[in-house]
Amino acid sequence: MALIVQKYGGTSVANPERIRTVARHIVDCHDKGNQVVAVVSARAKQTDELIAMAKEICPEPSPRELDMLLSIGEQMSSALMAMAIHALGREAVSLTGVQVGIKTDNIYSKAKIQDIDNSRILGHLSRGESVIVAGFQGVDSANNITTLGRGGSDTTAIAIAAAIKADICDIYTDVDGVYTADPRIVPDARMLKTISYDELLEMASLGAKVMHSRAVEIAKRFDVPFRVRSSFTWAEGTLVCKEVPEMEKITVRGAAVDKNEAKVTMRGVSDKPGVAARIFGEIAAQNLNVDMIIQNISANGRTDVSFTVTKTDLAKALRIAEKLRGEIGAAEVLSDDKVAKVSVVGIGMRSHTGVAERMFRALAEAEVNIQMISTSEIKISCVINDDKADAALRAVHKAFDLDKIE
Amino acid sequence: MALIVQKYGGTSVANPERIRTVARHIVDCHDKGNQVVAVVSARAKQTDELIAMAKEICPEPSPRELDMLLSIGEQMSSALMAMAIHALGREAVSLTGVQVGIKTDNIYSKAKIQDIDNSRILGHLSRGESVIVAGFQGVDSANNITTLGRGGSDTTAIAIAAAIKADICDIYTDVDGVYTADPRIVPDARMLKTISYDELLEMASLGAKVMHSRAVEIAKRFDVPFRVRSSFTWAEGTLVCKEVPEMEKITVRGAAVDKNEAKVTMRGVSDKPGVAARIFGEIAAQNLNVDMIIQNISANGRTDVSFTVTKTDLAKALRIAEKLRGEIGAAEVLSDDKVAKVSVVGIGMRSHTGVAERMFRALAEAEVNIQMISTSEIKISCVINDDKADAALRAVHKAFDLDKIE
Repeated sequence: MALIVQKYGGTSVANPERIRTVARHIVDCHDKGNQVVAVVSARAKQTDELIAMAKEICPEPSPRELDMLLSIGEQMSSALMAMAIHALGREAVSLTGVQVGIKTDNIYSKAKIQDIDNSRILGHLSRGESVIVAGFQGVDSANNITTLGRGGSDTTAIAIAAAIKADICDIYTDVDGVYTADPRIVPDARMLKTISYDELLEMASLGAKVMHSRAVEIAKRFDVPFRVRSSFTWAEGTLVCKEVPEMEKITVRGAAVDKNEAKVTMRGVSDKPGVAARIFGEIAAQNLNVDMIIQNISANGRTDVSFTVTKTDLAKALRIAEKLRGEIGAAEVLSDDKVAKVSVVGIGMRSHTGVAERMFRALAEAEVNIQMISTSEIKISCVINDDKADAALRAVHKAFDLDKIE
Repeated sequence: MALIVQKYGGTSVANPERIRTVARHIVDCHDKGNQVVAVVSARAKQTDELIAMAKEICPEPSPRELDMLLSIGEQMSSALMAMAIHALGREAVSLTGVQVGIKTDNIYSKAKIQDIDNSRILGHLSRGESVIVAGFQGVDSANNITTLGRGGSDTTAIAIAAAIKADICDIYTDVDGVYTADPRIVPDARMLKTISYDELLEMASLGAKVMHSRAVEIAKRFDVPFRVRSSFTWAEGTLVCKEVPEMEKITVRGAAVDKNEAKVTMRGVSDKPGVAARIFGEIAAQNLNVDMIIQNISANGRTDVSFTVTKTDLAKALRIAEKLRGEIGAAEVLSDDKVAKVSVVGIGMRSHTGVAERMFRALAEAEVNIQMISTSEIKISCVINDDKADAALRAVHKAFDLDKIE
């Protein structure tokens, strides 16, 4: 007998048939002697429909009211799921974020969970009921409804698993698990049996859209092992857990490409203290996220500073760079939105040498020119021309034998 | 400056255009120096759609889960209305029943309000915000969401008006006000300027579907004067308030017909103590509502007992009557579902004589045969053949000069 938290995404509750299928799975888990808490998302597309409805009424809806509106999607799914379990003759109860007691800060639309009261969930479980929780939502200290932002239902599930000390948390989605690379680009990609929190975090930040980083970060902080699984095949999926020495045997566990990058270069910047702080302070003040930053050694008291942002933020970044050009004495501002970032990730890098060289050679052999390089302890990223993005991903995937990973 | 509670029904929030129109009216009231609390219903038809969705998942959804599901309709309306007010540049905040603190018992789908915490509403009003409350819902002592049943949003509005000691409560709907009779049947029907709580209660119970009795009963209990008004014309409407001596000058204030009646007669019942109690005890035990009960004087130790139920309950009532026939020694059970009930209502009846005679003569002149008669202090009802229902209503309406009422 285990205490299991399950999370079902929007495609898993998209219609009555899907809801019945999921209910049957919850009942099966329960009947095997487990206690089940299922966190459900809004039906696929419902959140977009509600946002469109809000914008028809008010072009810039207040975040508080938008959260009030959006939270009903998950509430609807939770009530319908409880009914579907009743239809199978078992006990279940739906709970909103407020009812569970998911306390958050009051940053509407991207609230952070501060505390979860586990007493109500544990009470229902002890009476033999399955508990269906509306994901993505919480309540602030003034009793306003908040939502947790992107990946919110994953976050709810992981946080509840931590709060009730669940044995396992299963994140059901429409993919089988975590792959060595995006199978739509790399046909040879393999599904991973296990991956560490840190590796998944790097994969997520690199554009592998398996799970939102915030949920993974909470899992890491509270050490909540979880599986990424499919509610269409119910296969075992990928176990995400804390790093064990065994894992280091594999140098690189995954590769990813992010095509949503743009590059800005400020040429001939005065090489003196405070210049970088001035540039990136201004960019942060405008709420732009900078990904990579590269500054080479200087010549004649001048240097070049390059950085990448998302393609949608490029225009804003260029305006800031042009504004600062005179002040910091830059000769010119260049930009390129035809770039992509290809990366490899693996905790084994820490104990294996030659990883960077192997990646660069694979790219050279595929005739991919490297424009920028950035490394972390468990990751190497290269900015390249974006028309080579897919070829580059396939080349590094092969170079690290990811098509043969067990 | 006044403290105003307004209630908007499903047709008043049916689409973005209607929501914007209502928001404009709330803002106008606010800008005239009033404090406004608006209680909103779910968009017209949404509740039916949600029920249909539930029944597709589970033929007999649990009342708790159904309340959880249905409450989202009003939550949606309240958030959208607050956004529409923001779009007009004014402050507003939406609140669910839980957030207001509308405490109810735990009889799901027809919960009764036990207490309302007025502090949160008054706090928002004092900060110059209009408050938009999701109608029809509350919360029980275990923090479960409950709904108040038919007429629930009216009940919410009246109960809030009582809790915050509002100066007036405006129930906005799709009719202009309370009429002397249904204008679709009686073209000469006039809109009433005022009506007492008791008269409206009788009218409501007689099938005049202006407002649900429960809301009117609460208004009467806490003496909350309210107006029935149209959100399409914004005309003054009808003021419903406690009885004042002036009102008694008018003998009859309204007439109504209820075509949803069916009659059951048990013939030749033993005329001894306990028989009526046996019959109607059994009927109550099966949750059937009996409207009129008639028992005439007996002959030879036998009597006839007749009663009326709604047409939909007739089959159930007949099964009970047949079951009891042997036990109570009835000769036979007769039934008729082709009946209707025509009634006149007025507090002036208490001080005027000849009202019954005037009604019976009007029916006789219209060649309407009276099958059963029932009277209360302020009401006279006659059961008649249902193919004469409309003609009977027009006849009594004219007989009491309701087409000339001021």
